[in-house]
Order: sequence, then structure tokens, then C-alpha cells
Amino acid sequence: MAAASATPKMRDRMTAYITSLQKDITASLNTVDSSSSFKEDHWVRSEGGLGNSCTLQGGAVLEKAGVNISVVHGQLPPPAIAQMKANHSEIAYDPKSGKSLPFFAAGISIVIHPRNPHAPTMHANYRYFEIDNPADAGGEAKADDGPMAWWFGGGSDLTPSYLYEDDAVHFHSTIKAACDPFGAEIYPSFKKWCDEYFYIPHRKESRGLGGIFFDDLSSGAHARLPEGAQKPNTADEIFAFIQACGNAIVPSYLPLVARRKDSLYTDEQRRWQLIRRGRYVEFNLVYDRGTKFGLQTPGARIESILMSLPETARWEYMSDMGGEGTEEGRLMALLMKPRDWA
Amino acid sequence: MAAASATPKMRDRMTAYITSLQKDITASLNTVDSSSSFKEDHWVRSEGGLGNSCTLQGGAVLEKAGVNISVVHGQLPPPAIAQMKANHSEIAYDPKSGKSLPFFAAGISIVIHPRNPHAPTMHANYRYFEIDNPADAGGEAKADDGPMAWWFGGGSDLTPSYLYEDDAVHFHSTIKAACDPFGAEIYPSFKKWCDEYFYIPHRKESRGLGGIFFDDLSSGAHARLPEGAQKPNTADEIFAFIQACGNAIVPSYLPLVARRKDSLYTDEQRRWQLIRRGRYVEFNLVYDRGTKFGLQTPGARIESILMSLPETARWEYMSDMGGEGTEEGRLMALLMKPRDWA
Repeated sequence: MAAASATPKMRDRMTAYITSLQKDITASLNTVDSSSSFKEDHWVRSEGGLGNSCTLQGGAVLEKAGVNISVVHGQLPPPAIAQMKANHSEIAYDPKSGKSLPFFAAGISIVIHPRNPHAPTMHANYRYFEIDNPADAGGEAKADDGPMAWWFGGGSDLTPSYLYEDDAVHFHSTIKAACDPFGAEIYPSFKKWCDEYFYIPHRKESRGLGGIFFDDLSSGAHARLPEGAQKPNTADEIFAFIQACGNAIVPSYLPLVARRKDSLYTDEQRRWQLIRRGRYVEFNLVYDRGTKFGLQTPGARIESILMSLPETARWEYMSDMGGEGTEEGRLMALLMKPRDWA
Repeated sequence: MAAASATPKMRDRMTAYITSLQKDITASLNTVDSSSSFKEDHWVRSEGGLGNSCTLQGGAVLEKAGVNISVVHGQLPPPAIAQMKANHSEIAYDPKSGKSLPFFAAGISIVIHPRNPHAPTMHANYRYFEIDNPADAGGEAKADDGPMAWWFGGGSDLTPSYLYEDDAVHFHSTIKAACDPFGAEIYPSFKKWCDEYFYIPHRKESRGLGGIFFDDLSSGAHARLPEGAQKPNTADEIFAFIQACGNAIVPSYLPLVARRKDSLYTDEQRRWQLIRRGRYVEFNLVYDRGTKFGLQTPGARIESILMSLPETARWEYMSDMGGEGTEEGRLMALLMKPRDWA
């Protein structure tokens, strides 16, 4: 684990990166919506840490958008440790002890809901997580000898209401190009993981057209990558991979908003978009691990966590939209059977 | 348990009652909304059972309303049995066996979302649940010797967007009057349970102004009622209590819709109503046991389960509505500190 404790510390490098990325993303998004601009909202977590939620609501192009960073630390309760230990055997912990362990987490989270039903919703999240030795910790997490365990996670995915194949191809291709230098198996493995993760079992459909999703990326073998496959392995290499993915957010998505934001649309197409946003709410509130973890975390900043929810969502009983042979049905067919896009 | 197996069987008596109650409720609701009427949707569950979802969407008075009954049976998986055994020691079951047990469930579920922000949303649900002996069961549940365990559950609660104290008093008083003949402790105990149940921990607020909520009502002592308190005790008595509550749904609620449906309202009041409906969605998708159970049940009818969701809901980041000194804030104060209404 020496790599993770190289000077400067990874926690600081990641914090600096997401702070800079947040500025870049909001500046880029402001270029497609001159009607409104992002507002910064700096907050402090009483249990430890801080964040900056940059949000835009009611824009002509961006109906609701959030680009949030958070850098938090504190004590991880035993059930959370037990869950993490499953994927991180290096966590030295006796569940019978009932003790908590110090943690540190730094992440950026982006959700963009454009107003135009032809422009897709996009979500991305990249994060660094550390569990530290309690012996080092005093009251607060400290990692002079390196963390007990560390990993990165994240991903980026696209959720259109209407199917534009060239949009899906552009989004996936841009992400694939960012991933490929780090190993040929990275994109296909994490693309598959994304399709599995953003699935709504009770609807038997995907939330969207996917992208990539991964968690627990650290040194050594990874359960989702083929044995012996090339992967970023040291903390430095994985951080470089995270930066490549983070830097791909704007080029993967902004062109799609730019080319769809002025498309004409009907009331019926708006209605369909709101129904799809209802499904987005269903996924996030019922299944999304980050949301569930946030809602259960004492002192978590609920407004930032639920920033992901659309401004408006709609539920119809036995809706007559989305049937075969319609534009809406073309999207549904793909949500029920993911395709390769890049 | 002999009382539960009196002829005719409770499962049939409850089925007949909810079928009749559904007709009464939809007929009554139709009287306040001449613009639209309930549509029946009969369905069959391939794993066993059937239902009738009566829904109304897009009415001038009732924006979205559902009055659903379901009568289902099948095999209960071990985790569900283990959970139920906690409150029903009469369930003879070895969790190590990994076997399922036959169950039967009959219930009625009502959710009414009026269009006018001054008219409150109402929810009610009454149900009968049976676990049967596998020895009797063959492929299907059978209860000739009476079920292994049985209980009733349910409740009714009010969720306004604006506070009208007389509405809350009328709603609670009507329910209290239905409960009181069955024991003076019934209403206060189940009112308290309702306040506890319809609570949104991550928002630190109640979903609404409450009503009553109860579960696991069967013969013998009940954990929520004071020791020695009068309670309906036999299956016949509890069924009479359920009928009293079911029959109180229309008189407790319909007058409120009738007197608020034509109130003038502003765009801002509509906006607030949709924000409150967002909280309704949060509660139902994240915490409601019936919804969670339904979403996890293979073969469950998702459209009926999610009928409870409003037609439209809204989420604002750090909304400026609901502050102290406003009409919206008056409601919020009560959602953060429940009051006695009857």
C-alpha cells in the first residue's frame, strides 16, 4: 500500500483534482445555457468534512443540474465495515469488536437533466475511499503510514428519453477512448457492470443506455476484470485512469446537449420524458447504492444527495406510451436488451 | 385459532368485504368528480390469485386515484417467514429447513391525490394475512383446520399540502369514533404508531398529519397496546373492527375533498403541492414496507403497487418554500412535531 501514501497524499491529490474538475464542468455547461448559471453552495459537515454543491435550476437548456464535490471523513460504523471487508480483505477488523474505523472519502457527482426531451440526462461520479488504522487516528482519521485500505470507484452513464443512436455511440466511444490506454478489458468489463448496475428489477428495464460503472478499484486482482488482464494497478496509475475518465465527461456529453437543445418537441414528448424521469427516481431511491448509503448516513447532506432527482417526474397507471412501433418503444426495446455501442 | 376457521372462512369473508368496500368507495368518489370516472382493471397473478385495480387519472377534481383490491396466495420464501415469525410465535417453522410456507393475503388499498393543493391526499389500506400448514397444502394453500397463523393490519392517514386544522380534526375524529367501541386504547395507540410509521428519517419530517396504523392484530396480547387494555380479540371481533375502519374511509375523507376542491389556488401553491408529493414519493419508495415488499415479490403487479405515486412530483435543490412565517411553514411545523387531533 506504499503507493497510496506517496507524498503528496492521494486524499489531497484527489481533492485537488475534483475541485478543478468541478470548475471545468460547470464552466463548460454554462456555455450551453446562457439563461442561467451555476450557483455555488459551500457546506460543512459537522461530523467532519465539507463540500461544494454547484447547482443550476430552471435554466432554458438545463432544467436541473448538479455538479457536487464532497470531501468527508469520520468513523465508519461496523455494518458498513463488514460490507466493505467483503471486497477488501486487507481491512483488518474483527466484526465482534463492535468498533468503528476512521474513513476518508472524496468524490465528485454530476447529474444533468436537460429540459428538451431529445437531450439526454447524464450522470457521472468518481470517488476515492480510504479506511485508516484506528491506532493512528486519535479522534480523526490520519494516514501517515498509509491507509489500511483504499480504492477508487465511479462511472458515467447516459439516460435519454428518445433514442438517437449517434448520441449513444458518441458517448460510449468517448469513454472507451479514455479507458483503452489503461487496458483493453477495462471498457468492456465496466460497460457490462454498468448495464447490470443501472437496472430496475421491478420494471425489468435499464435506467438508460449505460456507460461505465466500477467500484473497489485498487492494487491487485479485481473480481470484474479477467485474470491477467492489463489494469491500472498502483494508486498513481488508478488515479491517472480516474482523471482520464473525469476529463472525458464534458467531451462525451456536451456535444449531445448542444445538438439537441433546440430540437422541437411536442407536449406528448415532454410527457414521455417526465415518465422516464419517474423511472429515474425509482432507480435512485430504491436501488442506487450511493443514494441509499447517503440516506442512511447520520449527518449526510440530504439536499446534495437528492440533487440527482429531476425537477419534475410523472407516474401514470398503465401508461399507453412506450408501445412497440412508436419512437418511445424504440428506446424501450434497448432498455430491455442492452447493446454494444463502441 | 379455532375462531379464524369458523364457517364461512375468514379469507372468504374478508374477500367479500373488500370487494363490496371497493365498490362503495369508488361510487362515493365519483360523486365529487363528474369529469372522469374510475376504470376497473381485473388482473390475475400467475403465481396465484387475482385483483381489481380501480383507477382514475386526470380528473378535474381527482388528479390520480386508485382503489385496489388483491386476493393472492402462494408460497412465502424463508426470509419473509423469518421476519413474520418475530411477531407471530405461533408460526411453527425451522429457519434451517429452507422450506417455504403457503400464505394467503386479501387487502384493499386506497390512495387519492386530488388536484387542488388545498385538498389533502388520503391513503388507506386494510388487509388480512394467513400462513397455512404445509401439510394441508399440496401445491396450494388450504386451511381446513384453520391457518397456522393469521392477522389483520391496516390504517388510514391524511397528507395535506396546506394546513386546515378542521380537516385534520374531522379526519382523526371520524377514525377515532370507529375505533373507540373496540377499546379506548385502540385509537391513541394506533395513532401513535401511525406517526412513527409515516416518518421520513432523512427529512426529519412526517409524511403527513397521520391517522391510524397497525399490523399483526390477532388473538392475544399485542405489543403496541397496553397490557390488559380492551381490544378486539377473536377473528370475528377483529374483522368487525376492520369493517368499522373500512366503513369510516369515505366519511372521514370525502367531506374534505368536497369543501376544498373548488378553492382558488396560485401557481406557487401548486408548486408547493408538487414538492410535497416529492416527499410522498420519497417515503413510499424508500420506507413503505408494503411497497418494498411488493417490489421484491416475484410476480407482484408493479402497476398496482406504484399506483400510490402521484401523477406529478417535484424536487428543488434547497427550495425556498416552507419557511417559518409562511402558510407552507405552518404545515411543516406540524410535520416535524405531531399533534393530537381527536
